[in-house]
Amino acid sequence: MTDQTKFLLTEKDIPKSWYNIQADLPSPMAPPLHPGTGQPIGPDDLAPLFPMELIMQEVSQEREIDIPEPVRNAYCQWRPTPLYRAHRLEKALDTPAKIYYKYEGVSPSGSHKPNTSVPQAFYNMNEGVKKLSTETGAGQWGSSLAYAAALFDLEVQVFMVKVSFQQKPYRKAMMEAYGAKCVASPSELTQAGRAILEKTPDSTGSLGIAISEAVEVAATNDDTKYALGSVLNHVLMHQTIVGQEAMRQMEMAGDYPDVIVACTGGGSNFAGIAFPFLGAKLRGGHDVRIVAVEPAACPTLTRGKFAYDYGDTAQMAPMVKMHTLGAGFIPSGFHAGGLRYHGMAPLVSHVQELGLIESHALHQLECFEAGVLFGRTESIIPAPEATHAVRGAIAEALRCKEEGKSETILFNLCGHGHFDMQAYTDYFAGKLNDQTYDESELAMALAGLPSVANAP
Amino acid sequence: MTDQTKFLLTEKDIPKSWYNIQADLPSPMAPPLHPGTGQPIGPDDLAPLFPMELIMQEVSQEREIDIPEPVRNAYCQWRPTPLYRAHRLEKALDTPAKIYYKYEGVSPSGSHKPNTSVPQAFYNMNEGVKKLSTETGAGQWGSSLAYAAALFDLEVQVFMVKVSFQQKPYRKAMMEAYGAKCVASPSELTQAGRAILEKTPDSTGSLGIAISEAVEVAATNDDTKYALGSVLNHVLMHQTIVGQEAMRQMEMAGDYPDVIVACTGGGSNFAGIAFPFLGAKLRGGHDVRIVAVEPAACPTLTRGKFAYDYGDTAQMAPMVKMHTLGAGFIPSGFHAGGLRYHGMAPLVSHVQELGLIESHALHQLECFEAGVLFGRTESIIPAPEATHAVRGAIAEALRCKEEGKSETILFNLCGHGHFDMQAYTDYFAGKLNDQTYDESELAMALAGLPSVANAP
Repeated sequence: MTDQTKFLLTEKDIPKSWYNIQADLPSPMAPPLHPGTGQPIGPDDLAPLFPMELIMQEVSQEREIDIPEPVRNAYCQWRPTPLYRAHRLEKALDTPAKIYYKYEGVSPSGSHKPNTSVPQAFYNMNEGVKKLSTETGAGQWGSSLAYAAALFDLEVQVFMVKVSFQQKPYRKAMMEAYGAKCVASPSELTQAGRAILEKTPDSTGSLGIAISEAVEVAATNDDTKYALGSVLNHVLMHQTIVGQEAMRQMEMAGDYPDVIVACTGGGSNFAGIAFPFLGAKLRGGHDVRIVAVEPAACPTLTRGKFAYDYGDTAQMAPMVKMHTLGAGFIPSGFHAGGLRYHGMAPLVSHVQELGLIESHALHQLECFEAGVLFGRTESIIPAPEATHAVRGAIAEALRCKEEGKSETILFNLCGHGHFDMQAYTDYFAGKLNDQTYDESELAMALAGLPSVANAP
Repeated sequence: MTDQTKFLLTEKDIPKSWYNIQADLPSPMAPPLHPGTGQPIGPDDLAPLFPMELIMQEVSQEREIDIPEPVRNAYCQWRPTPLYRAHRLEKALDTPAKIYYKYEGVSPSGSHKPNTSVPQAFYNMNEGVKKLSTETGAGQWGSSLAYAAALFDLEVQVFMVKVSFQQKPYRKAMMEAYGAKCVASPSELTQAGRAILEKTPDSTGSLGIAISEAVEVAATNDDTKYALGSVLNHVLMHQTIVGQEAMRQMEMAGDYPDVIVACTGGGSNFAGIAFPFLGAKLRGGHDVRIVAVEPAACPTLTRGKFAYDYGDTAQMAPMVKMHTLGAGFIPSGFHAGGLRYHGMAPLVSHVQELGLIESHALHQLECFEAGVLFGRTESIIPAPEATHAVRGAIAEALRCKEEGKSETILFNLCGHGHFDMQAYTDYFAGKLNDQTYDESELAMALAGLPSVANAP
């Protein structure tokens, strides 16, 4: 064998706990506020939406939270995931940098999302819940929750952002194969959906709208709870098994990252790979640069305001302090549907405010170009979301080439593109462009930030 | 951890050689014949189509053929593949049987096909070939060759059976992402294609036609060779790494199969899992039943004639002795496009004639039903081809239940269904039916068997 390209752990090495970075931060996050009163909310306010175990995780300041045995058993199907050294990509770039990537596309639904859908389904089942409602962008989350719900015999209703519903019809088929129901959002099933459709019948939807629909279903049905695929603290924490595994695998490789790159939509993929390394740094360990990469057409971290905002369009979810483009901001229909949320996870926003991470915005075409190069060299065709991380890593590798530095770059390849091939077809046909946003629309959306929570 | 569900080997355990069952058979196969003269052909006759190393493998009687180091290195990306115990499926069936499955869908293109596309691309590159032409049914093979060709810097032209080209547009996008070219067959690119289109302009194509097109391109271009994804001896042999790994994994599980089930189109998937076990039995080892499962709409093993036939429609490829429905047989457009070849691998046909295997034909709907049950219990959505193996394994498990026997069943889950979700969508919408074939068309196709080779 020549230079090793794959670093594998065994089932015994699946982490026994999730990592909560809040325990290591120099200052605490701002609390979530009630969307009506603007007052801090407590666990009881969240009880209609989530099982108590997840609420306790949401507010926990403990460094480690045990992973229940049934969850670790389910993880075993595809975890630990491989870490690869991208020898062929390095060669194609002629860079002195070493590029590693963690690959989360080996899960049943093809992304990192089952890392949290499995525990979420488990805790709900454990507390007697029969049904879950949720939203999904590109469909990665919806199909991951559908898969996890099948494991624990729960019903699922998914509200899928309409533009993705149309772009990626086979994600719906996958959810149905797992036994879930999926409708395009805005839908006629909820008051929130009907209100939007009345005002804008041809609405292409947004994650903010889909969240409103899913929250409404949970809030108005006793046997139903709500599940979210990103943004919340407990969701980000579940993803930290990615970074924890990666730390051990980098050790196997006899290396340590100088830079970590990850794409950010709601923030869970980014937190999953980055927070365990960031935590180690905060506790006095190795230094490491951490780079968040987001789409230029929905640039929450690079252009958003750090302020309290509604999590959803209908203003039913709690207000949280985050980098936001305004809950009324409807991003254009670019192909990385999983990166199209108007806000950013409060925890990711908080670490950016603390100066612990960098962020960059990238355009769609340069990302697909990077995705194709990656497919031809490393054999895996990345999801459109993941192409942002690929591009970000390539940019770092090219900088190293320019500076003549042999740095070590680690990125998270959060999913494969098997359900996103229409995007590649459009890219090859020259039909894609670099979508952006209207400055005046952004200004208007930002003007709608809740004044009750953002008093001067 | 509860009962183990996954059995993993390390990279060191990737077999060092392919297994050639011909060394262990009680009687030799009938030789291939020249399509024009009806006389046995030698290595030189095949030289316009294949590199010499593959031709020597095709005629080899050695038990083991070394796997070159660059091929094993490429295998490392996804091999060894996991073996799973299907605890949840067993529970759903309430069967005393133990069900294991080997999962080949973890490869970059999602099926077992790269096991042979990688060595084929390697040997061609090694002998200075610049370009490969090939056919593909459902697209699994075409995308696997495209992936392998990218590894070794070869160009690829794929002829994809038109009905699959229309059913599975994203396979083409995948081939293009890897840098290959793909056209619907019959095409205007070849004399064989144009001749078919002239007679039947709305031809939906067949593997026999697509093979003719690909062979013509290789035969008429000096820098181009032909690559085949199944049927031939060397292709079947490359797949035996699947069965070899499975033998070691069953040992890890402390078990041995009483029955092995695999789906058969051209025969390479079947041979890959079954031949190492069958060889061990022939050498005096454990007894094991081996069951080939094929589609009722293209029932080569159960309804075909064991006779010399053309491998392709235009009668350019060598004649081989196999179970065939006649090279003129055009199967209906059912969804398991990878199982739609008019013939069967001569080697698989030969072992059936020797009484070493059983074969059964299954209908499309019962297979999709099994595929959905499998997805909901075991979390992987099988390719339509693979649902035949799932159904076959379930049938054995239900027999065990009826007979009160706790047998061990092993099957090969040869690929995932990510590119076949339209089939599932159609299945859920009630649009699929149990396609079959016209008896008189079959009789006519069989009447067209070459008399020069089948003298009474």
